[in-house]
Amino acid sequence: MCWPLPAWPACLYRCAMHFFSDNATPISPAVMTAIAAADRADHGYDGDAWSARLDGAFSDLFDTSVKALWISTGTAANSIALATLCPPYGGVLCHEEAHIVVDECGAPGFFTHGATLMPLPGEGAKLTPAVVTERLKAIRPDVHQVPARAISITNATEYGLVYTPAEVAALGDVAKAQGLGFHMDGARFANAVAHLGCAPADVTWRAGVDALSFGCVKNGGMAGEALLFFGDQADARATEAKRWRKRSGHLFSKGRYLAAQILAMIEDGLWLRNAGAANAAARALADGAAGRLMHPVEANELFVHLTAEEAAALRAQGFDFYDWGEGAARLVTNWSQDAQSVAPLVDALKALGRG
Amino acid sequence: MCWPLPAWPACLYRCAMHFFSDNATPISPAVMTAIAAADRADHGYDGDAWSARLDGAFSDLFDTSVKALWISTGTAANSIALATLCPPYGGVLCHEEAHIVVDECGAPGFFTHGATLMPLPGEGAKLTPAVVTERLKAIRPDVHQVPARAISITNATEYGLVYTPAEVAALGDVAKAQGLGFHMDGARFANAVAHLGCAPADVTWRAGVDALSFGCVKNGGMAGEALLFFGDQADARATEAKRWRKRSGHLFSKGRYLAAQILAMIEDGLWLRNAGAANAAARALADGAAGRLMHPVEANELFVHLTAEEAAALRAQGFDFYDWGEGAARLVTNWSQDAQSVAPLVDALKALGRG
Amino acid sequence: MCWPLPAWPACLYRCAMHFFSDNATPISPAVMTAIAAADRADHGYDGDAWSARLDGAFSDLFDTSVKALWISTGTAANSIALATLCPPYGGVLCHEEAHIVVDECGAPGFFTHGATLMPLPGEGAKLTPAVVTERLKAIRPDVHQVPARAISITNATEYGLVYTPAEVAALGDVAKAQGLGFHMDGARFANAVAHLGCAPADVTWRAGVDALSFGCVKNGGMAGEALLFFGDQADARATEAKRWRKRSGHLFSKGRYLAAQILAMIEDGLWLRNAGAANAAARALADGAAGRLMHPVEANELFVHLTAEEAAALRAQGFDFYDWGEGAARLVTNWSQDAQSVAPLVDALKALGRG
Amino acid sequence: MCWPLPAWPACLYRCAMHFFSDNATPISPAVMTAIAAADRADHGYDGDAWSARLDGAFSDLFDTSVKALWISTGTAANSIALATLCPPYGGVLCHEEAHIVVDECGAPGFFTHGATLMPLPGEGAKLTPAVVTERLKAIRPDVHQVPARAISITNATEYGLVYTPAEVAALGDVAKAQGLGFHMDGARFANAVAHLGCAPADVTWRAGVDALSFGCVKNGGMAGEALLFFGDQADARATEAKRWRKRSGHLFSKGRYLAAQILAMIEDGLWLRNAGAANAAARALADGAAGRLMHPVEANELFVHLTAEEAAALRAQGFDFYDWGEGAARLVTNWSQDAQSVAPLVDALKALGRG
Repeated sequence: MCWPLPAWPACLYRCAMHFFSDNATPISPAVMTAIAAADRADHGYDGDAWSARLDGAFSDLFDTSVKALWISTGTAANSIALATLCPPYGGVLCHEEAHIVVDECGAPGFFTHGATLMPLPGEGAKLTPAVVTERLKAIRPDVHQVPARAISITNATEYGLVYTPAEVAALGDVAKAQGLGFHMDGARFANAVAHLGCAPADVTWRAGVDALSFGCVKNGGMAGEALLFFGDQADARATEAKRWRKRSGHLFSKGRYLAAQILAMIEDGLWLRNAGAANAAARALADGAAGRLMHPVEANELFVHLTAEEAAALRAQGFDFYDWGEGAARLVTNWSQDAQSVAPLVDALKALGRG
Repeated sequence: MCWPLPAWPACLYRCAMHFFSDNATPISPAVMTAIAAADRADHGYDGDAWSARLDGAFSDLFDTSVKALWISTGTAANSIALATLCPPYGGVLCHEEAHIVVDECGAPGFFTHGATLMPLPGEGAKLTPAVVTERLKAIRPDVHQVPARAISITNATEYGLVYTPAEVAALGDVAKAQGLGFHMDGARFANAVAHLGCAPADVTWRAGVDALSFGCVKNGGMAGEALLFFGDQADARATEAKRWRKRSGHLFSKGRYLAAQILAMIEDGLWLRNAGAANAAARALADGAAGRLMHPVEANELFVHLTAEEAAALRAQGFDFYDWGEGAARLVTNWSQDAQSVAPLVDALKALGRG
Repeated sequence: MCWPLPAWPACLYRCAMHFFSDNATPISPAVMTAIAAADRADHGYDGDAWSARLDGAFSDLFDTSVKALWISTGTAANSIALATLCPPYGGVLCHEEAHIVVDECGAPGFFTHGATLMPLPGEGAKLTPAVVTERLKAIRPDVHQVPARAISITNATEYGLVYTPAEVAALGDVAKAQGLGFHMDGARFANAVAHLGCAPADVTWRAGVDALSFGCVKNGGMAGEALLFFGDQADARATEAKRWRKRSGHLFSKGRYLAAQILAMIEDGLWLRNAGAANAAARALADGAAGRLMHPVEANELFVHLTAEEAAALRAQGFDFYDWGEGAARLVTNWSQDAQSVAPLVDALKALGRG
Repeated sequence: MCWPLPAWPACLYRCAMHFFSDNATPISPAVMTAIAAADRADHGYDGDAWSARLDGAFSDLFDTSVKALWISTGTAANSIALATLCPPYGGVLCHEEAHIVVDECGAPGFFTHGATLMPLPGEGAKLTPAVVTERLKAIRPDVHQVPARAISITNATEYGLVYTPAEVAALGDVAKAQGLGFHMDGARFANAVAHLGCAPADVTWRAGVDALSFGCVKNGGMAGEALLFFGDQADARATEAKRWRKRSGHLFSKGRYLAAQILAMIEDGLWLRNAGAANAAARALADGAAGRLMHPVEANELFVHLTAEEAAALRAQGFDFYDWGEGAARLVTNWSQDAQSVAPLVDALKALGRG
């Protein structure tokens, strides 16, 4: 989410010109096909054939035994994950600009019954073991203070940076040493993996992650993320998560339509192809915006220095995007673009000169 | 929900033969068409063109100013409605077999932060003013007891009965006199209105209803019910409900796909046509099951006396349905059926003779 | 709690004449002495010398290893106990007239974050294994229904009856077999044990009880009940209970004044002497009220048939008590009375004749 | 609260030598007398004669109509106040070192059902309008972000500084302009007023404060703070607070013992005499610690630079106090001291020389 939306142009959305948000994009054709294919009768809730395949499909993808639930939104997936990792009187170490802190209207507090988010600073919205460890040291081990019980990171981060397997593992080591649960918000997990080129396992459970919100919607889905649990406690946590899913009104009557979308994403690699296309578009824009970048461009978001005049000039050419405070803008690419299709904006950025 | 599901047949679902649940049915073709038509870029969340039309479309349908939100499930719609009507220390008068009591894993308690459901008896899962008034009298007006703050009824009820406008109004009068909020769970509201043949307004706000969970999913939708607020406090309650929707992870990134389904239901009368078909199928079955009915058949559910042998005989002919305790069964018809298409089961029931 | 209080007489309270509530009684002199003796500096919260003695004193009393916390009120003690035994999505089987159901303004729902009380019928406010087992059978083992996770009973009950060790053990067996936590609200536990003449252990942990709210206030304390945990999980539950105690604002800055009261009660048998006196007074009244008793009199409460005229006649003589609905009254005796001191009311009851 | 307690000396507490905490102090003799005087029968809960006098006594003290409740602890008083001012989806602007943030184990989150504390920086644990306003500006007015709904300040602050009436009023103006509730944690309110020499009204409701936690325990009480509501909404908020008090298990059965303590504090000026004595002791110490002070000394707390060797030297002379991180210490004076009685520590500090 960013600052209030300008009026949407009356014309049809043209992918080449629009960089508002990956939420604004249509859904990937293969996902729509999968929805249509699931449009037959089957058992309600998660008793259908598609839902039954999720554990297996994700176990294959992650090369370990995985418990997987469809959850309609990323906010709910994050919150349910945290509810299984942190008691009401516990705290969750996270970045001060994390989605769970600034964009979920307190949903983690709602699902955890009041657990405390413990916001920490860090470049590019990334946590480091040093920052986490320092915060942990400051907590007195008495009943007066909220004890940390979980770490949550976002990969790719809210600023489009990607944690490497080594970086995640370093935090995973802290989590393990301190007895903390470890959650990854993967709203743009596909973009992270597409950037890293690693196995999904390397940047998750092999690095100590207990629970992953595996994003699909920003990557071409209609509705439905996957909440994954890894490790020894996966079964117990997934069982509890299913309670929370029902209790929070997230157990759809016709869950097959969610499960089918997720399977369409992961069973033949669509998730990486879509994310790869968005990343490539972002890299192309990064070239065009050389000298203006506020953060390295590793996934599908760019934050660029841009004066009000420059922004106006781009908008006059038909490009849409959000301002990012004063003198800057956010550009988000999506699965429907690629390096070639965003060439007009690349050229326009180059024409502005170095920032 | 009913007792554990038998294994689903491997063959495709044939509407004529299946009476498990209206949740098991495919979605109405017009709804699928609407989803496809909404598959273009637009603002995220509820900032899109479809969501913007909801208030107007429902205001037209209900002949008054209505505030309308899409909510992905009925459980969430009910719970968010109750959260706007009842404080954590308050109670909700409801039937002891209401969906909110027996089938939502405590979701109302979650969303209201612990409000107390106050279950009451009543024929056919209907509340009466007498029962409600007696319960109210038994509550001491001190801080030790939970004060009632809302009434919630289900129309059509969990046993397929329909409250008339006069019956709702009688409860609405109690609510008004006692300062209670009044909620209607309309998971099968379309079936109720199709049965009554009245204006939707007559059985809701004109009868004192403050909030209505307007069901679409059982009636041919994929996901997405509408939560409607009527009356003087509609604006304030809807504003608060939007907070709860976000905070509970129910604000979809791509809300247009929910809004489009709901509009497809109501803008050209599909909701009543679909419900009418299901009701007609149920009436036909009721004729076939004469002498066996546990409740009058007014909507799309039948509860019939059926011995284990009779049930087995029907299943041997390919009909599927749930047992309802011992010696009884539940038959649910749906939008894809009508009087003619269920003729095979009508005949089979008749062949069993009067129960 | 009972119906609204009549105006209190301007005169001083005379123990012989007043039967409103054991909450209305002054505190036991030995307790006041203990408070004064604790009036010296010591560490805050529960770091003081008195608090440190609780585990040992209760372990001696119960002949097993006990973890004990002071909690200022019985409502809080009950609720914190339940919060350690039942998750938010679980249910607590209890009597429909239990204090936790009718007199705590939903406190258990607050502390458990929305767990569901599951009220059951039973003579004299007592649960039986048969009633509990029947209710358990009716719960479907799916995510749609709230699973029972705990049983809570009150001993002595809200109607002054006492569960025997065998009766408690029968419920304890059900709890163990079903994996349920087992809580006893012992607001009048002293009266129960004084009646039974058994070891405290026999009617608690030896009978399967996991957590006991050990009441002191009604028995002559000023403020402060003890929450006790027994068994293998006692340590873990007590640790969690300490978090809840702080988080709910119940960790007093000067906890020594609570701990000292509780120790004064149990370290030299005051609790049983006080309860014995109250019970004896109740037995004397029961003799006087022969033919009028609605329940057997086993602890310190009597429920008697009494016409409005008879009640008025007693009040005219200076006796105070609550009406109990129409044509009945509740009489509560307390630690400051005994068989002799209540003789005036015994005589007055006898003078009314058999009811 | 501060860092883990050293072992308490076996000898009796000698006021002259101990500076750990005002929670460690015995209770004021007049308070003990009041408790004894209340030790007679009266109605339970808050139906007694003492509780009935609270509104009037505080209305006199604050020169306006006040609604007053006894609440057993400051943590509960603060949390219940916030629960009446802030919805679950709202935020409370407060100092990052406020007691509600660092020393209540998340109690505000528990009572408010998950409201978000919004910690802000500020010298001496004081908020300024500038800091508050800047934070408010950063909140987007959409459903994704938690809206601020209240401001909470502590007077005297956690570092012993005192907000003047003008400073409070400046924050009160912001609160009013932004529609925020305004709470003051007055755990050491008496010390603040004793320092200011103003009318209690000047630094509270005349400056825009809606709710005040009026502390008694640190100032010589045993248990029981007063929660006060001012202004147009005082009645409604107090009524709701009474629900929360019961629901959170804070409605004592024998509330008269709390009410009597509070009345003893305020009805003849004991609160100001006690606080004045503690403040005078602190000022005397401040003279002795010239050159070492980390903050101005305005109430009854001093934070002083002190090397480990110096601290050891003082402790060797029998003085007790907490370390405050490295190279510093916290000294807390209390009602049982005065300038003269702390002379030994004044001399010892002077003997150390300027820090």
